[in-house]
Amino acid sequence: MSERFAITPEDIDAAASRIAGHVLRTPLVPAPRLSELTGARVLVKHENMQATASFKERGAVNKLIMLSEAERAHGVIAMSAGNHAQAVAYHARRFGTPATIVMPQTTPLVKVENTRAHGARVVLYGETLSESAQKAHELAGAEKLSFVHPYDDAAVMAGQGTLAREMLTEAPDLEVLIVPLGGGGLMAGTAVAAKAIKPGIELVGVETDLYPSFFNAVHGQERPIGGPTLAEGIAVKTVGRLTLPVIASLVSDTVLVGEDLIERAVNAYASLQHSLAEGAGAAGLAAMLKEPERYAGRRVGLVLTGGNIDMRLIATIMVRELEREDRIVAFRLSTADRPGLLGKVASLIGAEGANILEVSHGRLFLDMPAKGVTLDVTVETRGAAHARSIADTLAANGFAPRRILPRGLAEPAR
Amino acid sequence: MSERFAITPEDIDAAASRIAGHVLRTPLVPAPRLSELTGARVLVKHENMQATASFKERGAVNKLIMLSEAERAHGVIAMSAGNHAQAVAYHARRFGTPATIVMPQTTPLVKVENTRAHGARVVLYGETLSESAQKAHELAGAEKLSFVHPYDDAAVMAGQGTLAREMLTEAPDLEVLIVPLGGGGLMAGTAVAAKAIKPGIELVGVETDLYPSFFNAVHGQERPIGGPTLAEGIAVKTVGRLTLPVIASLVSDTVLVGEDLIERAVNAYASLQHSLAEGAGAAGLAAMLKEPERYAGRRVGLVLTGGNIDMRLIATIMVRELEREDRIVAFRLSTADRPGLLGKVASLIGAEGANILEVSHGRLFLDMPAKGVTLDVTVETRGAAHARSIADTLAANGFAPRRILPRGLAEPAR
Repeated sequence: MSERFAITPEDIDAAASRIAGHVLRTPLVPAPRLSELTGARVLVKHENMQATASFKERGAVNKLIMLSEAERAHGVIAMSAGNHAQAVAYHARRFGTPATIVMPQTTPLVKVENTRAHGARVVLYGETLSESAQKAHELAGAEKLSFVHPYDDAAVMAGQGTLAREMLTEAPDLEVLIVPLGGGGLMAGTAVAAKAIKPGIELVGVETDLYPSFFNAVHGQERPIGGPTLAEGIAVKTVGRLTLPVIASLVSDTVLVGEDLIERAVNAYASLQHSLAEGAGAAGLAAMLKEPERYAGRRVGLVLTGGNIDMRLIATIMVRELEREDRIVAFRLSTADRPGLLGKVASLIGAEGANILEVSHGRLFLDMPAKGVTLDVTVETRGAAHARSIADTLAANGFAPRRILPRGLAEPAR
Repeated sequence: MSERFAITPEDIDAAASRIAGHVLRTPLVPAPRLSELTGARVLVKHENMQATASFKERGAVNKLIMLSEAERAHGVIAMSAGNHAQAVAYHARRFGTPATIVMPQTTPLVKVENTRAHGARVVLYGETLSESAQKAHELAGAEKLSFVHPYDDAAVMAGQGTLAREMLTEAPDLEVLIVPLGGGGLMAGTAVAAKAIKPGIELVGVETDLYPSFFNAVHGQERPIGGPTLAEGIAVKTVGRLTLPVIASLVSDTVLVGEDLIERAVNAYASLQHSLAEGAGAAGLAAMLKEPERYAGRRVGLVLTGGNIDMRLIATIMVRELEREDRIVAFRLSTADRPGLLGKVASLIGAEGANILEVSHGRLFLDMPAKGVTLDVTVETRGAAHARSIADTLAANGFAPRRILPRGLAEPAR
């Protein structure tokens, strides 16, 4: 292997020694509820427990330590609006290294401020990641800063490979590793480490449907790339020059997953594993939900690569899932207004043993003042059968309920 | 110790051997972000990763294995509406033991169904836990079922003690263990295990302000007990006969925490540790938030005892926290209606770089049709300063914004 690829298993061994004590040796945990869900025997590597909540610290620390002392003292630069930015900024400060992070001008200010909070200089430049990347390279040249690439760098790839090395050292009976695939740094490091320890292991990379960069490169296809995704962390348009040959040669399969499965996987991590995953971090589980038969009964290692998900977004995902399961249901009732209307509706719903979460009371028909009324009632139920029973009761009492669906459509509720 | 207490360190050693392979040896993980938050060096024992998401499986499994084969074949009974019910039902099925769980009639049906899903017979009886408990004892006698007490049983206490044994085996340099305190099974097991391994360790039990049962017993006080709490898992009205002597003698301190701190701790676990804790499971962190100076710089072991929190509740907690940080802000604008009003407001907010989450448009003044209007706009901001800047812009444009606060009050927004 050593002649063909940018990194060797020995590079990963060396990286493991280097980063020990600087990044967490995160737990690899059997996940009984995810095993029930998928039919496989699932173990999860919890990289969301790192200080900046992603595996990116491994590569960043290995790179920082491999710089010369003079380079480290002078400073590093990176281009990223995400986990790589946090990882470089956090550990550069630990090493006393000045860090510059270039981000696109459109980066949400929360991310900018999080990165500044780690003491980094943030340069906002360009409309797209590639414009920012070019600026970062220019600055690196002009200011003699060491460039820390998010994936296409041997030191970074070797650092990420320590993750798979830990997994197979602790659980040598793993049969499949499923790894989210963005620029390919983690997947390439994983492949070199895992194949050296266990040549027969199956390696599956996961991309989102919207960013099939490696899928295209490996299969010689030209599927369109781009669009808003829940899995920002693996929304990468171009494959790595150093990572592609490793992945093309060692990875068994590149699987594409849709946004709906990524959302379901994020929710499953929360509700069944009690752990928060960002969209990209849940991509491996999404791949299992897509093809459960492929993994049935097998011992599967999932990498929960990162937990940096906005609290509002994860809250929304959880509530949407309850809506899908009919545990939160909204009804729109149209009726002639009359005194005591709300009391009557509330009593009927209460008698059904359901909990009213929200009421919105609108007099929409201004040409019939104080006569026509619509009432939107959001109710917590025990599930689909209970929701139907509530709708039946409301209908039997003349309220003509219609369901308000999560995406805003209304349909007859019975 | 062996003569004074219901359990000895040797009982816990034996329990550890018995339960190995039946329950997870959960990870004890350094928590860098919680360490930053509290100023201590925090390690978290993640019992929310157990199959039924709580430590209760340890005691239940130890008890099940210690029964005779005939007893195990005939069946067990327990009284619980919470984690103990799940733990007993789940492992009884694994051992082929028929399980009966008695729950109060008021138990939410979701919990009843979760317990039935593990194959248990559920008996709904009584208005209160003590009525249910009496029924369970009656049934145990009548049907010759072995009673599995949630805490006041030596086998259960010894099983729970394995948790602290694992913590101190892996991290012998822990200086303090902070443990949620309900019936005292976990705290008693922890105390006997921990003091045997490390006599100088400080042990802190945590109760909610609303259920100061051990606090009263230890300090000879009679504070009122009862009320709705986020920490249902430690809402216990009577201390254990077997657990109290251990706790009174070995535990350094019983700390009381308020509901607000429990809510903040649940949110901190989610946002900083990327892990879901139920209210009771977060009580230890709440105690650190209450007295940070007490733990500053010390090596503290927290037990995240359980992760069984309703998805809607955790979503609400997360959003409330964003509201507290002014990252989600609602304004009520009162103005004369005019064409393009919403467009104007949306443009002003957009120009401020904020994201509109929700708009509610009401014509409340029916005596002035199509003239008076209120508009409620919920906006995502970058924080308090940004929220103020948006309010200023709206005010400067004549919209007289008032803030709608999380609990529904409105105040002038500037």
